[in-house]
Amino acid sequence: MPRREPRRRSVPLAKVYGLLEPGPVVLLSTAQRGRPNVMTMSWHTMIEFEPPLVGCVISDRNFSYAALKSTRQCVINIPSVEIADAVVRCGNTSGRDVDKFATIGLTPLPASQVQPPLIAECFAHLECRVADTRMVNRYGLFVLEVVTAWIDPARKDPRTLHHRGWGSFMVAGATIRLPSRMR
Amino acid sequence: MPRREPRRRSVPLAKVYGLLEPGPVVLLSTAQRGRPNVMTMSWHTMIEFEPPLVGCVISDRNFSYAALKSTRQCVINIPSVEIADAVVRCGNTSGRDVDKFATIGLTPLPASQVQPPLIAECFAHLECRVADTRMVNRYGLFVLEVVTAWIDPARKDPRTLHHRGWGSFMVAGATIRLPSRMR
Repeated sequence: MPRREPRRRSVPLAKVYGLLEPGPVVLLSTAQRGRPNVMTMSWHTMIEFEPPLVGCVISDRNFSYAALKSTRQCVINIPSVEIADAVVRCGNTSGRDVDKFATIGLTPLPASQVQPPLIAECFAHLECRVADTRMVNRYGLFVLEVVTAWIDPARKDPRTLHHRGWGSFMVAGATIRLPSRMR
Repeated sequence: MPRREPRRRSVPLAKVYGLLEPGPVVLLSTAQRGRPNVMTMSWHTMIEFEPPLVGCVISDRNFSYAALKSTRQCVINIPSVEIADAVVRCGNTSGRDVDKFATIGLTPLPASQVQPPLIAECFAHLECRVADTRMVNRYGLFVLEVVTAWIDPARKDPRTLHHRGWGSFMVAGATIRLPSRMR
């Protein structure tokens, strides 16, 4: 695994919510017994600003479910439209059958505080630890605490993907400014 | 309150997730003691396809929190960029102080199965009952069941708003088709 490229910049934890709140499709990386895996996920929400807590819903039919439940670590990687093909291939295949990093051509980079890798082709990375599993059995809902976050400062206006279902994705449009006082 | 306009069309419950999964800002309407209120919300996720379950996180500092907790009913209304000004005004004011429907100029329409009103200016409406409050005290996380859903079929490509924080909003861009087998 290559070293993390120096162009990744740390994101203050208080600003993490701004990356997830718009609702992008993310790539969740896990690692179990030294083997990394990645899944495509859209069912997530912020739960708390700081420390940032994220709720994410993962079916027990997903191969990543057991890895997340037992290792209690993951990385939420945020892809942009340039790698839409890889995002779809992550969603169409299972880590039970293939090494997705190798077959899809994603590049794992070492994280700083957790075992699962960052995905080099994504523009943002949230290193997470599982903070609460009480809703896992009933809903597949994991509460994650983001412990470290990174962005690629060279990516000025990454266009995220937003899943509508069955092959339909909205691509993030323009960002506008409004006189809102909402954090 | 006027009758619901006939142009609203029912959405099959199995298709509700496609409205929320992209992560739009929504307007949550509640009603307590006959008085409707509305808040702007972005912290929500799908939890189950069918019956559709939605997790939404509402701070106990929001006036809507007590109404939702006690009445266990709400409507998730989805606005598009044309009413961004109203969305921001809903977020900048509190139902403690003002009647938001009157001051902001939103039109309440009767829902079919719950007391809180639909908001006529929005293009989609999910009538919800609270299904689980066990995560409310700790996280402000309500599990809602969507019992009926409506869209305005005249709105062909509504551009939703996606909150980045502090006055910054992403406006939904184009929808693309990809060879995804993900539901």
